[in-house]
Amino acid sequence: MDFGKEFAMKKSHVEDWIEKHMLTYENGQDVLAEAMNYALQGGGKRIRPIIMIAASEMFGGRARDVYHFATAIEMIHTYSLIHDDLPAMDDDDMRRGRKTVHKVYGEDMAILAGDALLTYAFEVVSFSTSDPKKTIAAISVLAKSAGGAGMVGGQVLDLLGEKKDNISYQYLKTMDSLKTGALIYAAGHIGALMAGADKEGLHAIDKYCAALGIAFQIKDDLLDIEGDAAVFGKPIGSDIENGKTTYVSLLGIEHAREMVREFTDEAVDALIPFGDKAEFMRELAYHLLGRNK
Amino acid sequence: MDFGKEFAMKKSHVEDWIEKHMLTYENGQDVLAEAMNYALQGGGKRIRPIIMIAASEMFGGRARDVYHFATAIEMIHTYSLIHDDLPAMDDDDMRRGRKTVHKVYGEDMAILAGDALLTYAFEVVSFSTSDPKKTIAAISVLAKSAGGAGMVGGQVLDLLGEKKDNISYQYLKTMDSLKTGALIYAAGHIGALMAGADKEGLHAIDKYCAALGIAFQIKDDLLDIEGDAAVFGKPIGSDIENGKTTYVSLLGIEHAREMVREFTDEAVDALIPFGDKAEFMRELAYHLLGRNK
Repeated sequence: MDFGKEFAMKKSHVEDWIEKHMLTYENGQDVLAEAMNYALQGGGKRIRPIIMIAASEMFGGRARDVYHFATAIEMIHTYSLIHDDLPAMDDDDMRRGRKTVHKVYGEDMAILAGDALLTYAFEVVSFSTSDPKKTIAAISVLAKSAGGAGMVGGQVLDLLGEKKDNISYQYLKTMDSLKTGALIYAAGHIGALMAGADKEGLHAIDKYCAALGIAFQIKDDLLDIEGDAAVFGKPIGSDIENGKTTYVSLLGIEHAREMVREFTDEAVDALIPFGDKAEFMRELAYHLLGRNK
Repeated sequence: MDFGKEFAMKKSHVEDWIEKHMLTYENGQDVLAEAMNYALQGGGKRIRPIIMIAASEMFGGRARDVYHFATAIEMIHTYSLIHDDLPAMDDDDMRRGRKTVHKVYGEDMAILAGDALLTYAFEVVSFSTSDPKKTIAAISVLAKSAGGAGMVGGQVLDLLGEKKDNISYQYLKTMDSLKTGALIYAAGHIGALMAGADKEGLHAIDKYCAALGIAFQIKDDLLDIEGDAAVFGKPIGSDIENGKTTYVSLLGIEHAREMVREFTDEAVDALIPFGDKAEFMRELAYHLLGRNK
């Protein structure tokens, strides 16, 4: 398998699917659609939908089986970035090398574009042509992972953490397992679920996603120090400047690097039962370990 | 039928259901749950879930058939109020006689509480025990009505309208049919759908809801002038103070009152095919016409 080619193909599926969901509105609220499309077309790694496709394929499914859910999970990720960047939250002007949504469309429109994208995600999944019971189970996983017990909860811990004098490694890990990990878990779990994975299969993919999620976040913290701003898409050193506690500030660069390797190995180990079928998922973990953006 | 008693019973169902969905979170994000619960328990007329129950019953369904969707639609309405009240939006300090969510929990937490409530609504409906195909169809209606082509779209028109020198009656009607009307439509439509209404039945209930939605909004504008602040739950005259175009400022008080009566009659006329079964829905329309909050 040519991993690079395979990865590019999956990503191109995702870009196509997102393109197909670009909106226009008819009653004068076109500017809302513009803001939503602007955010959705902002590039990004599309890592969540790619994991979902890969998980589905590992269990014998096809990419198009997760067409709706993969598109929806990227919409949910995108809405969360719009709201995270707001002045009342992280107050970021730039995202992936472009102005953030509220800098272009105003704060009010950015709040509403986020709301509309989140809502649209659940409309999109309602069009799934898969077995209705499976679809509903997947909607449940998606909503739970995206909500207060998942991604939004992680964002809350992030906000509360900023007000503390110091936060522990455990706090950081819990926060990231919600903020970043929950949607990665949902991506793998829903992909496997839609392809008909059994309980053991789901358990294995959950383990993979949990370890991958932490490796992914520590790597992100490392890139904030070691990365190239032009490639990374946001200013380097912004965590330090903002006095933000990260894995790197808690553990040091060397230890953090080691942790990325350890969690990557843990993720790859979870794939052992799947043998050759897990080749893409395995390579994906190594790819994320070595990424520069 | 004793309408008052019947109305109170339905409302008490809704309050119970909301109470059952009060949240606690386990990983330190309890304050998010607090903010969500604070907003949900803020009283309000619970008009959307009551319409949903009534629509279901009119087609032979039971209140508990819409347990999940009725709870969810009130969550979506509640999230929209939290976000509407934000400083970047309407910047309101008071709502239903209490401080708004961002005044109590801060702007960042209010944004996230809204996000989490919206997401939770779609988790709640995924637990519906009705026929899976019907459940998915209802999720589709709910998401479409709540999103950019519905409620959020109406909020966008509201924001854009405030920047215009003057807005027309037609603009106002389109805006309200989205901002208020879309969720009222969803309430009636989903109630009927879950109870197995046929195409003609759905068409009739849609007509009822469309007319009721406009009557409801014009009445709201009238209450902003004629109401009692303590009963209405927000300051009287705030629309005028904010230079807001309303049905009353466009049409004058007398004409606006007449319109409420006309649209109420139109709503009631749509119920003719249902005869005695529509008694509660009919009384509800007259009740809303005469309400003082």
